Amino acid sequence: MSRIAVIITDMFQDVEYQQPAEAFQKAGHELVHVGLRAGSQVKGEHGAVVKIDRAVRDVSADDFDALFIPGGYSPDKLRIDTDAVRFAKEFFTKNKPVFGICHAAQLLITAQVLKGRRVTGWTSIVQDIKNAGAEYVDAEVVVDKNLVSSRKPADIPAFIREALAMLAKKR
Amino acid sequence: MSRIAVIITDMFQDVEYQQPAEAFQKAGHELVHVGLRAGSQVKGEHGAVVKIDRAVRDVSADDFDALFIPGGYSPDKLRIDTDAVRFAKEFFTKNKPVFGICHAAQLLITAQVLKGRRVTGWTSIVQDIKNAGAEYVDAEVVVDKNLVSSRKPADIPAFIREALAMLAKKR
Repeated sequence: MSRIAVIITDMFQDVEYQQPAEAFQKAGHELVHVGLRAGSQVKGEHGAVVKIDRAVRDVSADDFDALFIPGGYSPDKLRIDTDAVRFAKEFFTKNKPVFGICHAAQLLITAQVLKGRRVTGWTSIVQDIKNAGAEYVDAEVVVDKNLVSSRKPADIPAFIREALAMLAKKR
Repeated sequence: MSRIAVIITDMFQDVEYQQPAEAFQKAGHELVHVGLRAGSQVKGEHGAVVKIDRAVRDVSADDFDALFIPGGYSPDKLRIDTDAVRFAKEFFTKNKPVFGICHAAQLLITAQVLKGRRVTGWTSIVQDIKNAGAEYVDAEVVVDKNLVSSRKPADIPAFIREALAMLAKKR
């Protein structure tokens, strides 16, 4: 069983959080919701509500086995927070699994961890991914070392499959 | 009097559209709202409504004297449309004034027109602007050749001032 940090804030894409979260828990993994304020509630684009367990300023990648970054506009809001950027970067420094879908790569671009990596993400950020020095791959899921990335809600089953496979390998 | 295209879609930042739009019209300029579907209505993050006059696929920079790109999440939605990207790029090719605030630079990054330019924009896209080969300047307004850019709602008065000054020079 792995302990997965979900880094999330307002305007996350609802199903891109809900479906992987449900699948990770069903597989026996523990989710800890990390956000800007512990105890606050954040809302998805379509109204889903998530309670934040821990403030990102109080946590480290050492406390977790993996990081899950749901999409929507949540990553755009997280990437202006220096602790959120530092936290995401730590998973790369420590070579721990990172699962990112849709706009998730925005947080990783600000963390400057994508250079030379193979990544996918939502259509709107293709040029940003390329400009960050990564190779953009137009596929439902891309696995590159510690990073599993997908483009959009339709990719969720492939995203869950590869994320769970990476966690199984790490045990 | 200049004819200004406002390229806009859902989730624009309300005041970043409303205040410059009002100032431009008050100064005698004509605004044409360009979006994804002519006749449709688009909504701001806080509920403001804008009617789209022309579909971007049907217009060219030749039809206008300047381009205004309001912020919010509208630019993220526009940059996946190849006509919106082509349209924004034309204003640079033809050296016509472009006014962009907040997330506006996202559309210009996808149009690949920022290399070597001095630009500002919302905090979340600082790294994207730098990775696009531009110099990010943390100022309320930055004027670089045909481009006037600002960061956020608090910068609106400076943004309006420099945009109007550029239009006055072009006459």
